[in-house]
Amino acid sequence: MNRTVFFLSDGTGITAETFGGAIMAQFEITPRRVRLPYIDNVDKAHQIVRQINHTAEIEGQRPIVFSTLVNMEVLSVIKANCHGMLLDMFATFVEPLEKELKLTSNHRVGRFSNVTKSQEYHDRMEAINFSLAHDDGQSNRDLASSDIILIGVSRSGKTPTSLYLAMQYGLKASNYPLIPEDFDRRELPPALVPFKKKIFGLTIQPERLSEIRHERRPDSKYASLENCRHEVHEAESMMRREGIRWLSTTTKSIEEIATTVLQDLEPTQNF
Amino acid sequence: MNRTVFFLSDGTGITAETFGGAIMAQFEITPRRVRLPYIDNVDKAHQIVRQINHTAEIEGQRPIVFSTLVNMEVLSVIKANCHGMLLDMFATFVEPLEKELKLTSNHRVGRFSNVTKSQEYHDRMEAINFSLAHDDGQSNRDLASSDIILIGVSRSGKTPTSLYLAMQYGLKASNYPLIPEDFDRRELPPALVPFKKKIFGLTIQPERLSEIRHERRPDSKYASLENCRHEVHEAESMMRREGIRWLSTTTKSIEEIATTVLQDLEPTQNF
Repeated sequence: MNRTVFFLSDGTGITAETFGGAIMAQFEITPRRVRLPYIDNVDKAHQIVRQINHTAEIEGQRPIVFSTLVNMEVLSVIKANCHGMLLDMFATFVEPLEKELKLTSNHRVGRFSNVTKSQEYHDRMEAINFSLAHDDGQSNRDLASSDIILIGVSRSGKTPTSLYLAMQYGLKASNYPLIPEDFDRRELPPALVPFKKKIFGLTIQPERLSEIRHERRPDSKYASLENCRHEVHEAESMMRREGIRWLSTTTKSIEEIATTVLQDLEPTQNF
Repeated sequence: MNRTVFFLSDGTGITAETFGGAIMAQFEITPRRVRLPYIDNVDKAHQIVRQINHTAEIEGQRPIVFSTLVNMEVLSVIKANCHGMLLDMFATFVEPLEKELKLTSNHRVGRFSNVTKSQEYHDRMEAINFSLAHDDGQSNRDLASSDIILIGVSRSGKTPTSLYLAMQYGLKASNYPLIPEDFDRRELPPALVPFKKKIFGLTIQPERLSEIRHERRPDSKYASLENCRHEVHEAESMMRREGIRWLSTTTKSIEEIATTVLQDLEPTQNF
């Protein structure tokens, strides 16, 4: 099916694409997706109109056009001339909210404009650096200043989840692997003991873990199903014994894991 | 101002919060934000209604309720009983699209459901691992398999941008620092020469660079304004000479940098 979906924005277009993409996912079609960011003046608006109308002509049906444009001059050019189906995400919700809040919206462009000097952005960059420096138990030094400590066996999903928590929520997320020595000792690694309240465990089905490890180190003992079964069993026993909250990541995306971690630990988010 | 904004979802609520947050950013208020994910049955819907109505009573005005709920049974409980201002992001756009596309929407919950087995998700995890392994020129081995190579002086924003490109777009983004030795030699590092087409340069105002470096290594030569001026000047000269596209990150967020990189390099995105 030839159908193109455009995402129009004065800024990066990330919000338009995230939201428009979620809406389009409700339909069993795979449209061509075109993000058109930084449409910040009338000239560009006219150029975009030509592009959309050209697509409409070639495909013989009107393109879907999601817009988060807040610049009214730009938007009016699109509205007046575009042959696509315009879904104006801005006006649809902002106008009723203006009435409800008894406030005028500021037509500020983009979530990300001039953020680099803000404390929030600074904290977010710090969190990313922190999570990188505390990946895979690289440093015990600053566990005290972590907002969240993820534990689990190697390849249970700790690293991408920590980075996601840092990048999206500005949280200092460190991660700490549970290794065979910990299981032999049958105790939580001593470095972690003082911080139980901010520890969250990740586990995974041994079958899936073995698959993932085989991609890294084919035919190793590390990747063998038997070893994965043993490690997962020991890790789960330890977390249960120590009263640590945990989650199986087997069928979960990093967004889903992060959402559950946030719900359970309720750390103080920077934003 | 006491005003609470709720984000309701059958899934993680990330789409609801991203989009609803962008809408609320149009107003000069700082509402309390509450994300309520995984509202996937009628019991939870009733519980949420009590929470929203309790807030309405305490605050003496109706909360704003952004919803991406797709489960009609759950949504109808909220619609019938909630005393908040309900902004139904789903129906608002999906219904007109059903008419336009002559298709019924599938009411599928969440962008992220059951994604872990998909090729897309697999590629995304691979990209994150790749970007971590190729941070800061750690390995020259796989530059050929990079989708994007970011270059620039130390602390110009390469690391967070590569991770963002990997995490959000499944792109294998590596980064490679330009160091004083490269400037003395006045040549692009030899490892990079074959891959000019996928190189993008990041630069930064020397004053800002010096600030950032002082946070890491106070009062070092590395952080001195004089040294930062020299390195930035040399890096920009080199990129200009080599015909490499580049951008100043001084006032840009990682989302803005990534958007520009994608516009300019047009790599084949995995999604």
